[in-house]
This record gives sequence, structure tokens and C-alpha cells, in this order.
Amino acid sequence: MEIKQVILLRTDLKMSIGKSVAQACHASLESYKLADKKSVKSWERQGMKKVILKVDQETILDTYKKVKGEKLPCYLVKDAGRTELASGTITALGIGPTEEDKINKFTKDLKLL
Amino acid sequence: MEIKQVILLRTDLKMSIGKSVAQACHASLESYKLADKKSVKSWERQGMKKVILKVDQETILDTYKKVKGEKLPCYLVKDAGRTELASGTITALGIGPTEEDKINKFTKDLKLL
Repeated sequence: MEIKQVILLRTDLKMSIGKSVAQACHASLESYKLADKKSVKSWERQGMKKVILKVDQETILDTYKKVKGEKLPCYLVKDAGRTELASGTITALGIGPTEEDKINKFTKDLKLL
Repeated sequence: MEIKQVILLRTDLKMSIGKSVAQACHASLESYKLADKKSVKSWERQGMKKVILKVDQETILDTYKKVKGEKLPCYLVKDAGRTELASGTITALGIGPTEEDKINKFTKDLKLL
């Protein structure tokens, strides 16, 4: 069974590349912490596949509701507002690591960054 | 004591943004796993500061040797070569989370991405 982590990153905000990278890392790490140990072990053995997708605010919120509803491990990043963005701005969503098929159901129509 | 994580990302390679983000996430997660629990707890309490810096191959290797020599938690990412890069290409370096002062000694002259 193929395991992956998917990160949705908003590209409709005026974030610098460094800021975007930091938000994605945050999503990746926090979603990793929520994943079940078995999936994490398989993921590590398989080379820790990560897929980065670009989204807007509407899509990130819609996807978050759906994956949360399906109880997939996921983490929505809200910026603390210390640098470029208003406090509470949603910037990224981490999903998994979990089974590829379960994630694809919600992300198959999204574009790679 | 301020705790942070720093990620050095090579910008002298022809990586797409998505690829760069994935490499940075990999560095962030693996370096996090190597950090001591006390630093991780302080870092989480302080809001998980992450700083992303841009480097070339020479600088990333030089910095890696230095931080490794000082026994800071760090992880050098070598790409598996499945997509855009030759296998073994060094792409990113994660340092910490650990004390800000200890990292700054080696990264203070590097530029933000």
C-alpha cells in the first residue's frame, strides 16, 4: 500500500517563497504528528513521498472539511501574523502520511505547485 | 531562551517551487526528529519559529560540516532522484530546533529566501 503526504499551499496570498516554505513545513510536521504509527513506518520505508499542490482559500477550506470529515490525519495552518500576513490567515494544509487512495479522492483535481 | 529551526535551501539548482518545498519539508521533519525533547517542547511553546535561507552547494556543505562538528541536530537532504534531479543531489539542510544563538553562529551571514 502506497503511503504519501500531501501539502496544499495557498498561492492566492502575497507570500514570499521563504514564507510559503515555512508554512508548508509547519503543515508537514503537524500532520505527521497526527498520523498513525503504522502509516508513518510504511511511509518512511517507502521514501517519504510528499506532494505539494497549489490552492486558493476556498479550495483549502473545502478540502480541509472533507478530509477532516473522513478522519484523515490533517493539519490546517493559520499564520500567527508576526511577519507578512494578518493573524489567523489560513496558509497551508497538511494531509497524511496516509494511504494514497484515501487522499487522492479529495485532491485528484488539484494542480501541482 | 529562544529556540528556532533553520532550513537552508539550495537555489542554484533548477528545482520547481513544489520540489523545493518538498525538500525543505523533508529537512524540517528529519532534523526535528533528531532534536532533543526539551528544545522541541520550548520551540512548540514559543510558536515553532522557522527561518528559510537560500544557499548554493558550497555553502550548504560547508555549513553542514560546521553544525555537525558542533553536534547540533541537523539533517542533510539528498534527493532520491525520482523526478527532477540526479540521485544523490544535495538539496536542503535542516538545523534544529535548538537554541537560536548556537545556530546563528553559522548562519548569520546567509540570506533569507
